[in-house]
Amino acid sequence: MLGHRFATRINSFASAAHSYWPDLAGKPTLAQMVARAATVEGLTELDLNYPDHAAGDARAIGAMVRDTGLEVSGLAMRYYSNPAFKRGAFTNPDPAVRREAIDLTKRGIDTARAMGAPMMTLWLGQDGWDYSFQCDYARLWADEVSGIAEVADHDPDCLISIEYKPNEPRSFSLLPDAATTLMAISEAGSPNLGVTIDFAHSLYANEQPALAASHILRRSQLLGLHLNDGYSKRDDGLMVGAVHALETMELLRECKQAGFGGAIYFDTFPDASGLDPVAECAANIRCVKRMLDAIDRLGQDNRLSDAQSAQDAVVAVEIAQLALHGRSHPA
Amino acid sequence: MLGHRFATRINSFASAAHSYWPDLAGKPTLAQMVARAATVEGLTELDLNYPDHAAGDARAIGAMVRDTGLEVSGLAMRYYSNPAFKRGAFTNPDPAVRREAIDLTKRGIDTARAMGAPMMTLWLGQDGWDYSFQCDYARLWADEVSGIAEVADHDPDCLISIEYKPNEPRSFSLLPDAATTLMAISEAGSPNLGVTIDFAHSLYANEQPALAASHILRRSQLLGLHLNDGYSKRDDGLMVGAVHALETMELLRECKQAGFGGAIYFDTFPDASGLDPVAECAANIRCVKRMLDAIDRLGQDNRLSDAQSAQDAVVAVEIAQLALHGRSHPA
Amino acid sequence: MLGHRFATRINSFASAAHSYWPDLAGKPTLAQMVARAATVEGLTELDLNYPDHAAGDARAIGAMVRDTGLEVSGLAMRYYSNPAFKRGAFTNPDPAVRREAIDLTKRGIDTARAMGAPMMTLWLGQDGWDYSFQCDYARLWADEVSGIAEVADHDPDCLISIEYKPNEPRSFSLLPDAATTLMAISEAGSPNLGVTIDFAHSLYANEQPALAASHILRRSQLLGLHLNDGYSKRDDGLMVGAVHALETMELLRECKQAGFGGAIYFDTFPDASGLDPVAECAANIRCVKRMLDAIDRLGQDNRLSDAQSAQDAVVAVEIAQLALHGRSHPA
Amino acid sequence: MLGHRFATRINSFASAAHSYWPDLAGKPTLAQMVARAATVEGLTELDLNYPDHAAGDARAIGAMVRDTGLEVSGLAMRYYSNPAFKRGAFTNPDPAVRREAIDLTKRGIDTARAMGAPMMTLWLGQDGWDYSFQCDYARLWADEVSGIAEVADHDPDCLISIEYKPNEPRSFSLLPDAATTLMAISEAGSPNLGVTIDFAHSLYANEQPALAASHILRRSQLLGLHLNDGYSKRDDGLMVGAVHALETMELLRECKQAGFGGAIYFDTFPDASGLDPVAECAANIRCVKRMLDAIDRLGQDNRLSDAQSAQDAVVAVEIAQLALHGRSHPA
Repeated sequence: MLGHRFATRINSFASAAHSYWPDLAGKPTLAQMVARAATVEGLTELDLNYPDHAAGDARAIGAMVRDTGLEVSGLAMRYYSNPAFKRGAFTNPDPAVRREAIDLTKRGIDTARAMGAPMMTLWLGQDGWDYSFQCDYARLWADEVSGIAEVADHDPDCLISIEYKPNEPRSFSLLPDAATTLMAISEAGSPNLGVTIDFAHSLYANEQPALAASHILRRSQLLGLHLNDGYSKRDDGLMVGAVHALETMELLRECKQAGFGGAIYFDTFPDASGLDPVAECAANIRCVKRMLDAIDRLGQDNRLSDAQSAQDAVVAVEIAQLALHGRSHPA
Repeated sequence: MLGHRFATRINSFASAAHSYWPDLAGKPTLAQMVARAATVEGLTELDLNYPDHAAGDARAIGAMVRDTGLEVSGLAMRYYSNPAFKRGAFTNPDPAVRREAIDLTKRGIDTARAMGAPMMTLWLGQDGWDYSFQCDYARLWADEVSGIAEVADHDPDCLISIEYKPNEPRSFSLLPDAATTLMAISEAGSPNLGVTIDFAHSLYANEQPALAASHILRRSQLLGLHLNDGYSKRDDGLMVGAVHALETMELLRECKQAGFGGAIYFDTFPDASGLDPVAECAANIRCVKRMLDAIDRLGQDNRLSDAQSAQDAVVAVEIAQLALHGRSHPA
Repeated sequence: MLGHRFATRINSFASAAHSYWPDLAGKPTLAQMVARAATVEGLTELDLNYPDHAAGDARAIGAMVRDTGLEVSGLAMRYYSNPAFKRGAFTNPDPAVRREAIDLTKRGIDTARAMGAPMMTLWLGQDGWDYSFQCDYARLWADEVSGIAEVADHDPDCLISIEYKPNEPRSFSLLPDAATTLMAISEAGSPNLGVTIDFAHSLYANEQPALAASHILRRSQLLGLHLNDGYSKRDDGLMVGAVHALETMELLRECKQAGFGGAIYFDTFPDASGLDPVAECAANIRCVKRMLDAIDRLGQDNRLSDAQSAQDAVVAVEIAQLALHGRSHPA
Repeated sequence: MLGHRFATRINSFASAAHSYWPDLAGKPTLAQMVARAATVEGLTELDLNYPDHAAGDARAIGAMVRDTGLEVSGLAMRYYSNPAFKRGAFTNPDPAVRREAIDLTKRGIDTARAMGAPMMTLWLGQDGWDYSFQCDYARLWADEVSGIAEVADHDPDCLISIEYKPNEPRSFSLLPDAATTLMAISEAGSPNLGVTIDFAHSLYANEQPALAASHILRRSQLLGLHLNDGYSKRDDGLMVGAVHALETMELLRECKQAGFGGAIYFDTFPDASGLDPVAECAANIRCVKRMLDAIDRLGQDNRLSDAQSAQDAVVAVEIAQLALHGRSHPA
C-alpha cells in the first residue's frame, strides 16, 4: 500500500549539525545521523551508501539502524573511493579500474544481503563522457551492459535497481533516461534488474515522470521511487511539491494504480542550504499524504477518465488541482 | 485592485471554431471571436494585435468590442506584415525596413489612442540574431534603443510596454529578460516606457518571475501582467497554475503588494491543441481567484514573513501550499 | 559512399522569394521551388512533404523533379490537413481522426512508391501531450505503436523512417529521442522500420548525436541523416557547423564507419530569416565536404584511437580540431 | 595585447596527482601545484582563491609564486569557510553571518594588495535562493548591492570584479547574467567595480558571450575573461573550443576590438575527470592562439563587415569558419 513506507537520504541528517549537536566536533557519525532520522514522524526506513556507510560489520550496522525503529530498505553504490572512478566505473577505460568497480559492487551486494536489505541501487553517474571524440561509444555501451549483467548475476536473489540521471558529474551520462536504461536492462537480460525513478532526474531528462514510470512498468520492474523537486535544469533536491505538485501527484497515481508497494524515498538536499532535515522530511511526508488523499478523491471521479479520453485538459487539470486542494470539481 | 480586471488573447477564440460555428466557412472574423470571448464569465477586456486586428476604422472596432461589454485594454504590435521583418524590426539591417517598422508602430500607437486604449505593447521578437558573426551587436543595440525612444516619444500620453522573451522566432532575442529590458529602457529614457512580464517567457528566461517583477517595480513601471504556464524550455502557453502554481502565486503576491491594478491577461494557447477557449479562460480566472484568496490568507500570517527572514523554506513553502489548498498552517 | 548524395528541404526555396522572382505574385509553386533548388551546386535530391507537395499525379510530380536533374529521395508526412490533428495523429483521442491519420499515411506511402521514392519519413510531432493529467499514457503508447505497425505493414517494400523530436508542437512528444523511438520500433516489430536522426533534434533531446546513431545502428537501421545546427534549446534550423562543428563531424564519422550510404539531408530554415537558400545549401555542402576530408585525415591517425582507448580528451579533441583545420596533430 | 597573458585555475593542478607525484601522500600543497603549473608552456600567471590559498603570509605566498616565473593576477573569494554561508554571503539572513562574509572579503582584498595583485574577483554563488516564498527579494537585492558597495569602497585602488553565474550551488543566483550584474554595479556606484565574463557561465545564462561582453564594455568595465566550454546546461569546465569554437572566437574578437589587455584565464576542470592539467592548459593556449590568428585574418577582410551589415549569415559564418581553418573565403 503506497503511503505506508517512507524512506530518506541519511546524509541529509548532517544538515545544520551544530545547532542539533552543539558540542559536536567535526562531522556527525552514521549512528548519530540515524538516531536523528529516527525522530522524523512517519519515517520507516533508510538507504545506506556503500561503501561510505557500510564499511565494517554489516550485521552490526543493520542492527544499529533497526534498534532505532527504522529498517534498511537497501544500499546504494557510490564510486568515489578511487579517484580513477572519475573517468568511469563499469566503463572505465582502464580494465583494472573497471574490475575494481565491478568487484566493489559485488561486495556491496553481499553487504546488503548480510544487512538484511533486499536491494542494491546503482547510480552509474561516472559512466559517461565529457567531450566529443573522447571515447568509442560502442565499447562504452558494451562495457556498461556487461558490467550490469555481471553484478546482477552475482546474486540473483538481490534486486538490482538502476537509477538514471542525464548529466553530472560527467557532462553526459550513458544511462540518461528511462528508455535508455530499459534498453540496457533488456540487453543485460538478468531478471533481478529494475529501475529507480528519481523525480528530479526525470524532469532534468525532459521526461514526464508518470510516462517514464509507465514505460518502466511495461518493460521491466519499478524498484525505487525517489521524490523531490527542482527546476528541470539540474538536480536541485528540493522538497516534494515545491515546484511541480501536479506532476508529482500524477507520478504517484501511476505508481499506485500499478500496485507499487515500495517505500517512497525522499532524495532531497536540505543540507545544501542548511535546512532542518527533520522538519523537512516530516513536511515531505505530509505533502505526499495530501497528494495520496487527492488521488483517492480522483479515483471516485469518472469525469477525470472521461476528460482524459478526450484529452480535455481544461477539465482534467482543474479536477486535479481541486482534488489537491481537498475539493471536488464543481461539475 | 488585483483580480477585478481580466483580459485575454483574442486569437484563442478561433480554437475549435467548427464545433462552435458549425456553419463557418474559413476562419472566424474578429467580431465573431470577440463575441465568443464576451461569453467568458468574469472577462472584462481584450488586447488586439496591430495591424492584424485593427486595420480599418479604429473607433468602429473599439465600439464593436465595447458593445459586447468588454473593454480594449491595449494594442500589441505584430511585425509580420512585411516578410523582411524576419531579419529585424527596429534592428533591421536595411534602413528602409527599419523605418517601416518604426512608422508602423507609430500608426499603431495612433490607432490605440483613437480606439480609447491607453497602452501599446511591443514584443520585439524579430530583433535578435541566429548566428555568431551574423551582426554587429553594438549597432543592433543602438538601433533598438533609438527605435524604442522614437516610438515612445511619438505620443508621451500613450504607455509603451516592452514584453521580453529570450528566444524564438530568432535564435536569440536582443531583449531576452527583465534586466536587459530595464537597461534598454534606462538608455532610451522616455518616461512612458515600462515592462510587461509574461510568466512563461520569464520561466523560459531562467528567471524567478516574482524577482523579475521586483526589479521592474524598482527600476521602471510594471505595465502588463501576462499569466500562463509552461515547462521553462519554450513558450508553452499552458493554463495558469498547470505546472508552477506556487511561482505564479508568488508573482501575484509581489504585484499585489506593489499596488499593481492593471488587468491580469491570459496569454495562453488553447488553439494550439484545440481546447475550448471559453472554458479555458474561465478556468484561468477561477484559478487566479483561488490564488488571490490564498494570498489574502497569507497576509494574515506573520509566520510567513518570519520564515522568510530566516530563509526557512521548510516552513515558508508549506504555509504557501496550505494557503493555496484553502487551509492555514498547523502550528 | 557518404558525401556523394545531398538532399535538402524544398520549402527553404521559398525564402527571399521576391528578390529571386521579382514578378512573383503570392507564393512560389512547387515547380518553381524545385527549379530553384536544382541550381544548387552539388545537390542531388529532394524530399517532398505529403500531402502538401504531392497532391495530384504522383508520377508527374516525380517526373517534374527528375527533369531538373534531381531525384526524390522520399516523402515526409505532415499532419496539418485536419485541424483536429493538433490533438494527435496516431494517438488522437477521437478514433475517427486517428483512422484518418493512418489512412492518410497509407496514401502517402502509396504516393511515394508511385513516385519512385523508396522511403516515407514519419515525424509524429502531434503525438504527445501538453498537460499532466491530460491523457492516459498507456493508451497513448499503445495507439502509437499499433499505428506505426499498421502503416509499416501496409507496404513492406517501402522503408518507414521515424524522425524523433523532444518537444514542439506539443509540449512533450511521445517519441522524444532515439532510445524511446527504438523501443517503439521494437514493439511494433515491422522489419521495414528505421530511424531518421536530425542533428538539432538530437541536441534538443540532450543526446550526443554520434551515440544516438550508434544505438540506432545497433538496434535498428539508420534510414535518414538530417544535418543542421542549433543551440540545444529548440529546433533552430541553422547551417551545418555553425555551432557544433566537432559534434557534427563525430556524427558523420560514426555514420561513415557504419557504411551509411544514404543522402545527407539539410533540414535547415534559411526561410525563417530570409537567407538566400541556394547560397545556404551550397555552403552546407562545402562544410560537410570539409568535415569528410577531416574524417579521412583522422582515419590515418592511430593516435585518435589510442587517445579514445584512454578517454584522453586533451589529445583526442585537439586531433579532431586540427583535422578540421586541415592539419595533422603536432606530436 | 590580447594573447600575451595566460592564466589558469590553480586547483586544476591537483588532477591525476598520483601519476605526477608517485610518492605523494594526501593532497598536493599549494607550492606543489604552483610548481606544476609553471611547467605549462606559455602560462604567465595564476589566480589564487581566498581564503583557501592565501592563509598565512601574503607576501611570502606571492614571492613563492613569482619564484616559479608566474605572476598572481588576482584573488578570488570563496565562501565555504563557514557552513552558514550556504544560505548566503552578502545576502545571508543572519546579520552576523552577513557581516562575517563582508569582513572576510575585506581581508581578502587586503591580502590581494599585500601580495601585489591588482584585483579581487567576487563570485557570489551563495547569494540566491532555492524555493519560491523562501525570501523577500527586495531585501535580498538591497543586501547584495550594499555589500558589494561596502567591499568596493574598502580599498578604491583594488579592482573588484563580479563573476556572474545563473544557477548552482543555489537553485537560482541573484546575479545570474551580465545585465543583472550591470544593474547591481550601477546601483552600488563604486568606480572600481567591473565584471568578469566566464564563457561557460554565459552560455549557461542563455547569453551570446560576445553580446554580453559588448554590454559590459558599454556600461562598466570588463575586468576578467574566463574561457572554457560546455553544453549550455551547466558549468561543464571543458577545454576551450571543444564545443563552441565560433562563439569563443567571436567573444575574443569583441574583447580584442575593445582593447582588452588582461589575461585570458582558463576556468576549466581537468581534475573533474582526471585529465593531465599541464597538457590541457597548453592545448587551451594553442587553441586560443589559433583563434587570435583567425581574428587577424578576419580583420583584413571587408567582406565580413559587409556581410554583418546585411545580417548575411551565409557569408559571415563561412568566412569565420574558414578563417579558423587558416584559410580565406573563396570570394
